[in-house]
Order: sequence, then structure tokens, then C-alpha cells
Amino acid sequence: MKPRARDLGIGFAGTPGRFDAITDVPGVSVGYATIMRGEGPLVVGDGPVRTGVTAIHPRGLGCHEPVLAGWCALNGNGELTGTTWIDESGFLEGPVMLTNTHSVGVVSAAVVAWQARTGRLFQPYSYPVVGETYDGRLNDINGFHVTAAHVLAAIEGATEGPIAEGNVGGGTGMICFGFKGGTGTASRRVEVPGAGIYTVGVLVQANFGTRDQLVIAGVPVGRELPDDPSPVLPAEQGSIIVVVATDAPLLAHQLERVARRAGLGIGRTGGIGGNGSGDIMLAFSTANLGAATADPLARIEMLANSRINPLFDATIQSTEEAIVNALVAAETMRGIDDLVIPALPHDRLREAMARYRRRA
Amino acid sequence: MKPRARDLGIGFAGTPGRFDAITDVPGVSVGYATIMRGEGPLVVGDGPVRTGVTAIHPRGLGCHEPVLAGWCALNGNGELTGTTWIDESGFLEGPVMLTNTHSVGVVSAAVVAWQARTGRLFQPYSYPVVGETYDGRLNDINGFHVTAAHVLAAIEGATEGPIAEGNVGGGTGMICFGFKGGTGTASRRVEVPGAGIYTVGVLVQANFGTRDQLVIAGVPVGRELPDDPSPVLPAEQGSIIVVVATDAPLLAHQLERVARRAGLGIGRTGGIGGNGSGDIMLAFSTANLGAATADPLARIEMLANSRINPLFDATIQSTEEAIVNALVAAETMRGIDDLVIPALPHDRLREAMARYRRRA
Amino acid sequence: MKPRARDLGIGFAGTPGRFDAITDVPGVSVGYATIMRGEGPLVVGDGPVRTGVTAIHPRGLGCHEPVLAGWCALNGNGELTGTTWIDESGFLEGPVMLTNTHSVGVVSAAVVAWQARTGRLFQPYSYPVVGETYDGRLNDINGFHVTAAHVLAAIEGATEGPIAEGNVGGGTGMICFGFKGGTGTASRRVEVPGAGIYTVGVLVQANFGTRDQLVIAGVPVGRELPDDPSPVLPAEQGSIIVVVATDAPLLAHQLERVARRAGLGIGRTGGIGGNGSGDIMLAFSTANLGAATADPLARIEMLANSRINPLFDATIQSTEEAIVNALVAAETMRGIDDLVIPALPHDRLREAMARYRRRA
Amino acid sequence: MKPRARDLGIGFAGTPGRFDAITDVPGVSVGYATIMRGEGPLVVGDGPVRTGVTAIHPRGLGCHEPVLAGWCALNGNGELTGTTWIDESGFLEGPVMLTNTHSVGVVSAAVVAWQARTGRLFQPYSYPVVGETYDGRLNDINGFHVTAAHVLAAIEGATEGPIAEGNVGGGTGMICFGFKGGTGTASRRVEVPGAGIYTVGVLVQANFGTRDQLVIAGVPVGRELPDDPSPVLPAEQGSIIVVVATDAPLLAHQLERVARRAGLGIGRTGGIGGNGSGDIMLAFSTANLGAATADPLARIEMLANSRINPLFDATIQSTEEAIVNALVAAETMRGIDDLVIPALPHDRLREAMARYRRRA
Repeated sequence: MKPRARDLGIGFAGTPGRFDAITDVPGVSVGYATIMRGEGPLVVGDGPVRTGVTAIHPRGLGCHEPVLAGWCALNGNGELTGTTWIDESGFLEGPVMLTNTHSVGVVSAAVVAWQARTGRLFQPYSYPVVGETYDGRLNDINGFHVTAAHVLAAIEGATEGPIAEGNVGGGTGMICFGFKGGTGTASRRVEVPGAGIYTVGVLVQANFGTRDQLVIAGVPVGRELPDDPSPVLPAEQGSIIVVVATDAPLLAHQLERVARRAGLGIGRTGGIGGNGSGDIMLAFSTANLGAATADPLARIEMLANSRINPLFDATIQSTEEAIVNALVAAETMRGIDDLVIPALPHDRLREAMARYRRRA
Repeated sequence: MKPRARDLGIGFAGTPGRFDAITDVPGVSVGYATIMRGEGPLVVGDGPVRTGVTAIHPRGLGCHEPVLAGWCALNGNGELTGTTWIDESGFLEGPVMLTNTHSVGVVSAAVVAWQARTGRLFQPYSYPVVGETYDGRLNDINGFHVTAAHVLAAIEGATEGPIAEGNVGGGTGMICFGFKGGTGTASRRVEVPGAGIYTVGVLVQANFGTRDQLVIAGVPVGRELPDDPSPVLPAEQGSIIVVVATDAPLLAHQLERVARRAGLGIGRTGGIGGNGSGDIMLAFSTANLGAATADPLARIEMLANSRINPLFDATIQSTEEAIVNALVAAETMRGIDDLVIPALPHDRLREAMARYRRRA
Repeated sequence: MKPRARDLGIGFAGTPGRFDAITDVPGVSVGYATIMRGEGPLVVGDGPVRTGVTAIHPRGLGCHEPVLAGWCALNGNGELTGTTWIDESGFLEGPVMLTNTHSVGVVSAAVVAWQARTGRLFQPYSYPVVGETYDGRLNDINGFHVTAAHVLAAIEGATEGPIAEGNVGGGTGMICFGFKGGTGTASRRVEVPGAGIYTVGVLVQANFGTRDQLVIAGVPVGRELPDDPSPVLPAEQGSIIVVVATDAPLLAHQLERVARRAGLGIGRTGGIGGNGSGDIMLAFSTANLGAATADPLARIEMLANSRINPLFDATIQSTEEAIVNALVAAETMRGIDDLVIPALPHDRLREAMARYRRRA
Repeated sequence: MKPRARDLGIGFAGTPGRFDAITDVPGVSVGYATIMRGEGPLVVGDGPVRTGVTAIHPRGLGCHEPVLAGWCALNGNGELTGTTWIDESGFLEGPVMLTNTHSVGVVSAAVVAWQARTGRLFQPYSYPVVGETYDGRLNDINGFHVTAAHVLAAIEGATEGPIAEGNVGGGTGMICFGFKGGTGTASRRVEVPGAGIYTVGVLVQANFGTRDQLVIAGVPVGRELPDDPSPVLPAEQGSIIVVVATDAPLLAHQLERVARRAGLGIGRTGGIGGNGSGDIMLAFSTANLGAATADPLARIEMLANSRINPLFDATIQSTEEAIVNALVAAETMRGIDDLVIPALPHDRLREAMARYRRRA
């Protein structure tokens, strides 16, 4: 079992859910297709290939009832398709898919085909929600190796419970703060007195930041590890997609507020929303099942605005931890043209934390 | 009894409410303070004065429970204060006030004082919602003749039932399409099968447009009445505030959608959202009483998105008719420096409509 | 030569450019791939096929320098990918593609592949801008008949000068106000004293509205032609994409303002931005060539806000006329399951206009 | 001379300007009116009074030429009037005023009166830009002690060079992280190779956060000083206004991007944009003098998007330092009902920083 950030003794605020994962939100399931093949020099169309697809089903594969949702961008040098309808309707109507930047189209097409074939279209038409980050430094991104079959594999292979992190799914070929990045997840449980206990779960596809920016639990880790082997990378090709799930009963405009807080979680790790970065956050609530299909009137439960702060805290904390989890889980990767991106060294991370009195 | 646009035989689509007014939405009350004094040359600080204040209480003077709300701008050369909190919270917490551009501050201050004094603060702090249009061509706007007493008079004098139009309240000194403009109102009743009958009511403070732009029920009235006495006015000092009330159970993001349609109603009368115009639309719903105060959880009723079109139609129709009602009700005014702005001539309007086969 | 709306004597305001088309804006070129095959009952995957792809190159096929751009939605039940980066950067980096709703993915993928292969990526990554409207009532939309080859054909076949309208390109299978809709275009020339003469060109893919809503030049044409053969259509599956091009030197936030006015043009034809409609508007300026590539500083020319009204007028007028042009050009189509959507009858349109004194 | 955060040895990233203040941006001047009188129990209308007004002139008192500007809210439980026109036009037309929440109206009215009287109206009408935070725990806020005279004093007393911090101007009665807050400022100089050296200056009115949230330079100072005398305060009545000035040539949409980064600076100090907090950020650029008045065409210089990251960094760093400067400068205050809010103890802060190896 691979260690996660908490296993390294990093102290995060808040109380995680059972799996410390987005799947702690009941119903949420996650599937990956990870595509890795080939070594050596880049031959466009041949590889090497270091990429994949991630699928997040807000209510699981078996239930395609829409969820209330909101989104925003900390810096919009990126893509999350389908947002115009989320803004207008307040609902997210299908799975959330993550992949590399140049496979957004093929993933979108495969999602529509799957929805049409399996009767999952909510309206006669669908605007798939597909996010991306750029893996073209490790992956033959212009070889277009993601296929409809990979998309289906991610969609249909989705599971609840513990999920893999690091070099998996859409996060396979990602780089984060000059270390190997990728997929990470975390969760928080918060109690709202009189209302109940809610879970906030986050999944990130982390591909942003420069070495010197990295901060973990307040410690300037990036500046502590300057000499660690790191390729010379242009600062400006990263991005992060943050997907926030919760079972708290929030309306669409409240979920947009939650999404905005994920940006503060990015900030806690040192992110600045750099110009080249597509830092896009999406939040949905699995509460209010039936709200999208009730006709003509839906009864919706809403958490009072005055009670929302614990969910903001949970979002910030989960986003921060999910990013660090991605870094901790990701393994050193050799990609196109033999570029090697090192994993964040666990031992040196522990040492840095200790120097700053931040290890438990 | 002054004729309204319908009395002139102008055919509007849709079914109005009892008073064809925003007050057809149960609970909504409207109060005016109209300030007119002096004649002759402008002496800043002395007059002549042609201005006022309008107060709209979403739930009447007796109930200061917030309403769900949304807003947008067709062209933002104007001011509607308090919108940042409407966007964030989804709620409108006090009355909606309309006045002239340079009295926004005094009205805002008077509203806060009234709220604090009478225990109407919903939070410890208040961000009054005050909209404006510019009456400086007829009114000594920089003489600042609106006082806290006027604001209180409008707030406390609010009534249900039929309300005055034309040269009243905040609309007193307005000009619209080169004719005398001002305050107008209209409403529509729409049935949503299975849900019930809802009312949409609109109140406008209409101060926009150039003579040649005016269209009424599809007829280019402005171009039909080019020779009518009209002062040479700069094209670019107008604005319109549209307040849309409904008892349909709409969420905040749906109310923003409704507000956007008010812009199409402006468009039907020939408005283009010109650069100098502050065309700002606010929509609120009186449904879901208690949603803002329920703690920690509120139960909210939501009309399905798929059922919202009749409300869009009603908003467009009511906005169009409210603007025409403002024009029909407003009487010729002599303002500062003896500038005379003519009323829209009813007889010539009838003739123009007849020529285009648009009179009933 | 097919007649256009002006040829039927419909009086539109403003002065069109040479071709009364988006291509009147110097540099703008448009290409179509029109896919029509098969007759009879729908067999998903086999057809009948009534669809296509439209490509708009802001600076022509030969110049992939980004243009300043802005966008907005009147009603967002639709998709225009790539908007997050337009909002953030202020620039549009590639062609604008239009197709059917379920081919957005394949078009997006084909655009990226073409950009990567031909060296047209402006950044290392690309977020193609692909808009859509739904043709699933006439076309085997879930048969996914648009291929990368069609996308390339539209991209590489783009031309300047007069362009086809009606059942062509992405607009092939569209329905508008219960008549056959599709692709339409129009333009206006406006003089800004002291600055010069600018062109505004619009291309629409028109697929929205119900019969009773249609208004042409102020005349309620839809209500005048109620008995015209028209299939019973659900009201709620339409959409319109409006692309506005201009050579006026406008900044990104000014182009967003222009895009918003295209919504008023939709309104002039009777559109209400219905819930089922994806009414999305994009505006770009071909001025300021080099602004996106200048490094570190660009010199940009900006038209004063106070001079922008003629461009707003031109946008509204061009949008209205482009929609009517689409209706006038589109021919009766028999689609899947032998559904026949009639063309707008030119003779009856002339009659209706005459009855309302609107024919020249 | 009072120590500032740097004087306590706190290590901030980046290079400050001469005064480490917003006034390092050439032309920017700042004026305060500080109103403190009375002691003891609250008698509404009598006091005690602990409030004030801050005025920021983007180009100094002598030049009222508009500046390009953008804004956003991290959490919109607050007010910044005038933003609708900033969004629409891209320009900020007058001074930026900061005061307490319930004095927004009187300040707005006084600004308009001053503009009208002194010929500073840019259009015939003005929408003053007035921000606020809530000082009602220390100040008789509903006594409305800010008058037009105070507004004028702040406006006309504005100076360049070093400016006061802490309990001054609009920030007089503020509380931040359970310590005395108020006004703070900081600046950064950044070089953009090939373009020049630019300054980013920030002024904050800091009134947000709970004790446990406070982080300074990565150190959880709030949790280190839990036993420090601190009144029991409700968590949810804070806010922060951040004003960012720069001489870098940025367009309106780029300045909105800069404003968004100020939110990351708030996050670095522990802020979460809590529901009760009005965290609003405004950014303007003093470059491009004449852009707003050029007619019909302006020549504008724009920094390339690809060069903007140093300005993002500078904004985050300056916002963080300005907040800490406010805390360091503010002195213990006894307010209404003898509530005492303690200053952040400098010695204990030094100790905490040292424990975490963060003191220089």
C-alpha cells in the first residue's frame, strides 16, 4: 500500500472521511483508464504514451439523475466543456471526465455516444463535461492516443471506495511544482449542528506550479528542495482541475461559492493561477435527488448561507490535501524523449517538514 | 382616470393581472415621493426640481423577510447598489429604491438609517439596493433635492393595488425616446399546468432611447412621429431600471435568467442598450417565504427549468408594456431652463398604430 | 441566384456591405461541409443524414494570429467550447466551428489535430472553439456522421466573398420558427466620424423559435401564417449561434458588449431565449493584428466607448437580417422518418409584409 | 516611527517599492479622515465613535482622468458601489473611497457633490466607487458619524509618499483575526524584461478572519497565540477591501485577473472568504493616460498576457504583506461598551515566527 500524505506525518486540518477520497461522498464513483506504452524519442502518433482518462459519476454509474452544480476559474487557460449549461440550468447532467488537453474532443464524442446508446441523455441533446490538463511534456499528446474505448473503460470501470492516485487516469502524465503530479483526492467530514454531518470530497488532476512555489502545510518545501533533480521546465504550461463533491444540500449558486474556495486550496500549496495555467473548479451536490426531474415543481433542501463556512473550510482543506496526495502518490516517470520527472522524495519532504516543526 | 396603453387600443400579448401592475404580485407594495417645485432657469441648489424616489417592498412594508433574487445589466452605464451580495447570497434583503443618479447616496443612507432604527436589518449590516436613472436635463440634479424625508415618505407610503405612473417617484424627471418618460408598470398572469397560476409584475423607471428608435407593438412609432415637437437631446444620457417581481417559485439563478429577459422587453421597444444607458434589471420572487431565515435547513420550492418559458414571455411582455405605459402616462413637463419635453401624443400614437394595422 | 430577404423587399435598417455577409469584414473566410444522404426511416448509424460543419477563419486560412474576442449567452442551453480561455485572455486563437450538438467532440478533435499537424497551435495546447445547434429532428444525430474529413473540408474550403446560406454547413438540418432554418449572414457598414468606416458581419446558425413567435421587420409573420403546413414540433429544442465579426478596433470587454447586442437581434425576430435554446453569441475584431503576439508590449487601438453605438446598431441589425436570410434561403427538407419541414413561403411572406405596410 | 511587519523580521517574498505602499505607484495618493471620540457605553447617535474615511486617487487629486480597472469578489457579503460601470466601460472614473458599511451612502453623496462642484464629473453623471467594511463592534455605526466634511477631508488631504496604517481612515474601527485590524499597505517592484520595471501597490481595509485562522508567512500564528486576550467575537462579521494599483499597462480584463489574485493573498493569511465576509478586490492601472478621453480612437499599450505572472506574484505578496502591516500597525482599541480589541503583540509574533524558523 502506497503511503499518502498523511502517512508521511503531514498535519492537515480537519477530519477526513473513511477513505479520505471523493468517494467518501455517498454515490460518487471514479474510474480510470491509464495508457502507458513505449519509451524513447517522441514519434508523433507512435508515442511514448503517458496519458489517460478519469471518469467521475456524481451518483454512480447506475443513476444518471442530474446534480446541482456550480463552477469557476481561478485562471482560465484551460477547458471544461459544458459549463454554459451548468451556469444556465444550475445542473450537471452527466459524468465529469478528465483527460489531456488534446483529447477533450474524443472524450466528449465518446461520452455522447455512450449516453445516446445507453439511454442516458437527460435532454435530447448533451453537452459533455470534460476537463483537461496538458501532458505534452511526457506524453505524445499530438498522437491522440486516447480512444473511445479508453473513455468507456473509465466510465464503466468506476468504483466506490478507495481509489488510486498519482500516475493514473487523466492525471497519468502530469507534472506539478516540478515534481511528478497527477491524480489526487481527499475528503472532509463536517458537522452542521441541527442539520447533520456532511462530506466534502475533492479529486484533482494536478499539473501546475513551479518548484519554488511549492508550499506544504505552510512549509516552503519547494525552496527547501532546490537541488533535487528537476528538469528545466517552462513555467507556464500547467493547470489543475478540481472537482468538489458534497452531499450537503447546496443550491447552484452556493456550489459556485464552494468551487471558488477550491482556488484558495490551490493557493495554499503555492499556486498563483499563472497565466499559462487552467485552474478550473467544479462543485456538485448529490443531495436533492429528483430536483432535476420533478415536474412541474421540485422540493429542494438548502443549507442556510450562514451555515456554509464549514463546507468552505472543508473544500479548501480537501483541495490542499488532494494536491499533496497527488504529489506523494505519483512516481518518477520517464516520458517522451527520455524526459524524467522525479517523484517528490518522501524522505526529504519529511525532513523539510520537521525543520519547520510541521511534522506530527 | 388617465388612460393607459391598453386604453389606447394597443394590442399587447398575454393576460395582465387585475391592476396590470407590479402590485398584482401578492405582497408587493410601491411608494413614491415626487418632488416638483420651481420654474425657470437652473440655479443649482435652488431648482427647478423635478425628481423623486420610488420604493418597492417585495413583501410589503410589514415583512422584511428577504426574497430570492437575481439581476443583470444589458448595459451597465448605471448603478444598482447592493448587487454584490445579491449575487453571493441569492437573496435581496430590503426594499428596492429608485431615484435620480446623484441621489443614490442619500437614498442609500436613509434606507440604512430606517432599517437600523426600525429593526429591519437582516444582518448586522445592510447594503441597500438603490437604482437610478438620470434626470439632469429637467431637474436640478446637482442641487441634491432628495432628502431622507422623501425616502421615508416613499418607503412608508407604499401601497398595494393600483399605482401611479408617469411623472411620479424616481421617474418624475425622466425622458424616454425623446418623449416624457418616467415610471410605468404592467403584469402578466401565466398558468403552469400542474403548478398553478403565477403573476409576473414589472415596474420600470424609463429614461432611455432616441426618438427614431421607438417601436410600439412592432410599429416604428418614433419614425412615424419625427416632426413632433422634440427638443434636441444628446442621444446618450438615458437609462432604464426594470424591477421584475413574481410569485413563481424560482431560485436565484433562475431569477437572473428572468432578469435577462427584461432586456428583450427593452429591445422590443427599440432599445439597444446604448453606451450611455444604464439598463439594469432585477428580478425577485416572493415565493419561498422563510427560505432566508430557516436555520440550518430551508425547504425551497423550485419551478422546473423546463416550465420557465411562460415566465420569460411574461417578463418580456410586461417590460414592454410597462415602458409604453410610462410613455402614455407621462405628461408634458417644463423643467430647468424652461426645457419642455412633450408627452407622447395619444392621438398620433393611435393613428400610427392604425396605419400599421396594430390597433385593436 | 436565390433571393435573399432584401430581394423580397423586406426593409431592414442600416447599410449592408458589398456581399451583405460576414465576409464583408476583410480577412474573414467561411467554409462549409454539407452532409446529406439517405431517405426514409431513421436507422441510427445509417441515416438519413442532414448535417454538416461550418468553419469561420477570423483572418482567413492563411493567418492564424489570434483576434480579440468576447462572448455571452442569452440562454445557455447549448455549447460553445473554448470560452473559458476567451474570457481569461481576451483572445480567440483559432477558427470558429459550428456543427450539430453531438458532433462537437469530433469537430474539436479534428481542429486540434489540424492545428498540431499544420503548425497552427498558438500555445502548446489548444482549446478549439466549437458551437452547435441540434438537428436531431431531421438528422440521424446519434449516428455521428460528421467526420474529421468533413471538418477539414470546411476548414480548408473556406472562401471570402459571397457565401451560401440556408441548408449548408453546420446549419444544414436546422429548424427555425417552425420553418426550415439554417445558416444565414448579413453585414452593415457604419461610419464613425474621425475614425473611419467599419464593417460588422454576422453569421448565424439558426435553429430556434416557435411559429407563433416569428417577427420580421416588426410584422408578426408567424401569426399571419398559422395555417401554413408545419409539423407539430416540441417548442423546446432550438438554439442559435451568432458569430459577429468586425474590423472596428474593440477591446475584449467591448466585444463582449457587442456580443450581448446580438441577443437583441434575436429578440427582434421574436426569440425569447427559451429554456431549451442555446442562444450563444461570440464577437471578434480583426483589428489590432499582432496584439496577441507582440512581446512584451502590444500597441492596441481602441474605439472610444462613446463611439460604440453605431456598432451596437449594426450588430442588432445584422443579426436580425442574418436570421431572416437563413429562413429565406433554406429550402424545404425531408429528413428522418420522412419529417418534412417547409421553407418559409416567399410569396406569403411578401403578402404579410404588405398587409403591415412593411414591404418597400 | 512605528515598526512595520518587515521591521519585525518577517520575511516576505519580493522586492518592495520605496515606501512599501500603494503610493509607490506614481501618481497614487491617499487621504484619511479618522473619527474617534467618546468612551463608554454605546448611545446610538452619540458614540463612542471609532470610524473614518479613506480616499485613494488613482492619478492624484489633480488629475481626474479615468483609469482602466477591473474587480471581483472572493465573497460578496459587502459593497463596492460603482462596479457595474467598471465592468461595462473598463474604466474607473473617480477616487476609490473606503468607509464603514453604513456610511457608504453619505460618502457616495459627498463624492458626487464634490465632483459636481469642482468639475470632476467625467460623464454628466457619476457612480461613486465606495467600499466598506463593518466596524459596528467598536464604533457607533448606526449613529452615522461620518459626514460630508470628513469625506472632503479625506479627498483633499490625500498625499503621496509614506502613508499611515492601522487605526486610520476607513480602517479605524476594524478587527482582523481577533486582533485590532485596519488599514495596511505594501508594494512590489517587478521587472518585465524588455518592458521595464513596474510597481504594484496594495491598500487594504482589513476586518476579516478568526483568531485560529491567522497565518503569517506560513506560520499558524493564530493557533500559536490562542491564550492572548481576545474578546469572544462572532466569527462572521468581517470583510476586507483590497485596492490594487499598478503602473503596468494592463487592459480592463487583465486588471480583473489581477484583482482575482488579491484573493490568493487573502488566502495566504488564512482567509477563507467566509459567508459573512465581504472580500472585494479592485485593481486599476495608471498607465495609458488619455485612453478614456481619446476620441474617437485611443492608442493603448498592453502588457502581453504571457508576461503577467510577475504582476500576479506581486499582487499576492503585496496583499499578504498589507494585511500583516495593518495588524502590526493597529493599536489596541477600546470601543463601544468598553470592548477592547488587542493589538497583535509584536513580541509574541516574533517568538512564533522564530519557533517556525520564519524570522529573518
